[in-house]
Amino acid sequence: MKRVIFLSLLVFLSTKAFVQVNDSTFIRAIYDSALTNNFAFSQMKILCEQFPGRLCGSKAADDAVTYMFQLLKKLPFDSVFLMPVKVPAWERGEKEKAFLSVGKNRKIPLNVCALGFSEPTPVKGLTANVLEVQSIEALKKMPDSLVRGKIVFFNRPADPMNISTFQAYGGAADQRVRGAMAAAEKGAVAVLVRSITLANDDIPHTGIVRYENGKRRIPALAIATQHADLLSKSLKNTPEARLYLQNSCRYLPEKMSANVIAEIRGSKEPETIILVGGHLDCWDNGQGAHDDAAGCLQSIEALRLLKALGYKPIHTLRVVLFMDEEVAQSGGKEYAAVSANNSVKHLAAIESDRGAFTATGFSMDAPDSCWKAITKWKDLFVPYGLYDFRRGGGGVDISYLKAYSTSLLALITDSQRYFDFQHASTDSWDKVHPREMQLGSAALAALIYLIDKYQWR
Amino acid sequence: MKRVIFLSLLVFLSTKAFVQVNDSTFIRAIYDSALTNNFAFSQMKILCEQFPGRLCGSKAADDAVTYMFQLLKKLPFDSVFLMPVKVPAWERGEKEKAFLSVGKNRKIPLNVCALGFSEPTPVKGLTANVLEVQSIEALKKMPDSLVRGKIVFFNRPADPMNISTFQAYGGAADQRVRGAMAAAEKGAVAVLVRSITLANDDIPHTGIVRYENGKRRIPALAIATQHADLLSKSLKNTPEARLYLQNSCRYLPEKMSANVIAEIRGSKEPETIILVGGHLDCWDNGQGAHDDAAGCLQSIEALRLLKALGYKPIHTLRVVLFMDEEVAQSGGKEYAAVSANNSVKHLAAIESDRGAFTATGFSMDAPDSCWKAITKWKDLFVPYGLYDFRRGGGGVDISYLKAYSTSLLALITDSQRYFDFQHASTDSWDKVHPREMQLGSAALAALIYLIDKYQWR
Repeated sequence: MKRVIFLSLLVFLSTKAFVQVNDSTFIRAIYDSALTNNFAFSQMKILCEQFPGRLCGSKAADDAVTYMFQLLKKLPFDSVFLMPVKVPAWERGEKEKAFLSVGKNRKIPLNVCALGFSEPTPVKGLTANVLEVQSIEALKKMPDSLVRGKIVFFNRPADPMNISTFQAYGGAADQRVRGAMAAAEKGAVAVLVRSITLANDDIPHTGIVRYENGKRRIPALAIATQHADLLSKSLKNTPEARLYLQNSCRYLPEKMSANVIAEIRGSKEPETIILVGGHLDCWDNGQGAHDDAAGCLQSIEALRLLKALGYKPIHTLRVVLFMDEEVAQSGGKEYAAVSANNSVKHLAAIESDRGAFTATGFSMDAPDSCWKAITKWKDLFVPYGLYDFRRGGGGVDISYLKAYSTSLLALITDSQRYFDFQHASTDSWDKVHPREMQLGSAALAALIYLIDKYQWR
Repeated sequence: MKRVIFLSLLVFLSTKAFVQVNDSTFIRAIYDSALTNNFAFSQMKILCEQFPGRLCGSKAADDAVTYMFQLLKKLPFDSVFLMPVKVPAWERGEKEKAFLSVGKNRKIPLNVCALGFSEPTPVKGLTANVLEVQSIEALKKMPDSLVRGKIVFFNRPADPMNISTFQAYGGAADQRVRGAMAAAEKGAVAVLVRSITLANDDIPHTGIVRYENGKRRIPALAIATQHADLLSKSLKNTPEARLYLQNSCRYLPEKMSANVIAEIRGSKEPETIILVGGHLDCWDNGQGAHDDAAGCLQSIEALRLLKALGYKPIHTLRVVLFMDEEVAQSGGKEYAAVSANNSVKHLAAIESDRGAFTATGFSMDAPDSCWKAITKWKDLFVPYGLYDFRRGGGGVDISYLKAYSTSLLALITDSQRYFDFQHASTDSWDKVHPREMQLGSAALAALIYLIDKYQWR
């Protein structure tokens, strides 16, 4: 009996060793190829430079859809198509103005920008006293009389003690997303929100603000962190100082846009899809390089690498450049709905939307069987610096596939610099490092290869 | 019997759990403190801006020694002192000139810089044909007649397929360090070496060149990677093109400098030292921010953090800012010699000199018992992104302590961007990210705490 066990073990070990050697050799080839070509980086640069401010509903977004569609057509995909998506539209208008009047004739200018899909102020702007608060909860406890007619200034910083800056961001984002709702309910005339970044600089960071349907909507702007500190200090010295805010943004009619999709058809199970993607849209105030031109190009590159290495996938490999991640996630929702209507099965959906910094692992929202499989594959990734395999969300765009039992994954990257640039004018192509970006592309390709080959077994 | 084992295990587990909780709590406090103060970053900025080009033997290096000594005096160390070190000296002189003459009156200017401690060219420069080679080995196989009178152009790039850029650097550095020796022996008049970086840019990177004692010495210069490619291409079209090189560097007499040392005296075993350090000198052409002002400040910060948290070390904690890592390692050698003469025992020596990017682990050159201990501690580091614990070198400055059975360790960091700047004018303070730097400071502090508390047990 012992002998049988021993022999089985030997067979098991040698089979395992064989598979591992093959896989590790192939993954090595993926990285070699990724680190010796600059297709993805140079295309990311073009997308950023030629189509900055790709906010859903904008001309830049439309042009980017056309450009990427044409680009994908030139690559050796089996099919490339557009999936129509209806998107909301809004434009910022003139550059926003803000200053604090302290004493006679002394005005402190402040760097602000409207939050995305904010209400405008009256044309001539508005002036009011300022109520600084640290949280929505604190605001809710205040008497309405204290809030009424004021500009509510949400100034709780992202907590620098978080090691992951995504946690720091997550701990402060409610002020930006829901602060205007809470302040409007109590009679405020506008909100000004500290930019959600750990950087100490004079650049305001935008991002979505949400309003409650049918309720009063007030203008919502972001203020640069340095200027938030300055404003807070000035208010301590001069509580009665009055703040002027002016922004001229406006809502536009919904319009049609598209998710851009390309695929390599599966050789054995073409009806089952492994999806990899990022979002093509970005905020209007910058190039959206890390967020998320780089994620789009990494996704394309992952499939390009597999194709270039002659890999014949069992399942259909599909890259999706989602439209409108930033505002209403209409691209992600539409993709999930169309998939459901056509009974399209996804073996996995993987998103890259956390900045194209050095890849450190994968986050996974999937059944235990998938978790077990990825844990088994971990040793194949460690030589490339990927060590962080964790349970967690997959990404905003693909999250709508969860309802259809799709395994969702996100590429995890070094987060330290991401929120320095996110949603700001500084998120430009030169902030992306070509090698760091390609380490992510290769990691995606390796993961797709393993999922395709082993089907989570 | 089973019951006894079970009980022992319980006791063991609970003891272990207790220790772990305490340690993890303390390490969490180290990180909290590190991520909420900017002392180290702001001092690194000052060191870079006020004392750029701190090449050993320079006034900038002398001034930096004085400044750092005074700075350490102001911090709550128990003692601060200088250890005299005799260092070599050299200066670059005028900005170097290089151009390739192709055809009549057409000159292609090339960005070059003298390698550190290179010979000068004749005052008016030198002009010669160029022999491009890919390696010292290839050169050695060539007949002397082919080499004689020529400028040897070493153009083998750092291999981008390495995941660690240190490996890429290591695979190309022989051309810079020993290329001039090999070329001189075969009668070349100078060498021009491709900058050892994976960046594709027009900035030359310097670094040490070595000559053989008593043998002929020829000028040695580095050329920016883009210009190396341009030169190579031009030579393919015009093999007879002549290259003009001019550099006016000169050797200066040896002079006295110092290692700067500060320590917190141990409460129980003060005669035994845990050393942490970086090197204060840098090349003359830049601020030496990542290499290695940041490492110096991280080392100081590690001890400052422990002190600020009220930690009373068992052993003496010593920070050493080594002089002359770049040229002759006279600071490291002197430190080891003085320690040996005074029978100073080091429980460990840790160096930070791999760029202040996100810390990913520690490299260790130490006996198995230490390796076992650090492996046990690994779980305490993983929450902070440190996963890479490997056998390997500790760092150049501390390497001379190896002869005295010291456990040597190096802080490992994300290497992707390091050689973009190393030894170049671009290695300035703004390339250091405050959070990335502090993650390294905290990692050093945590490691020192564990070594001090458990003495590798």
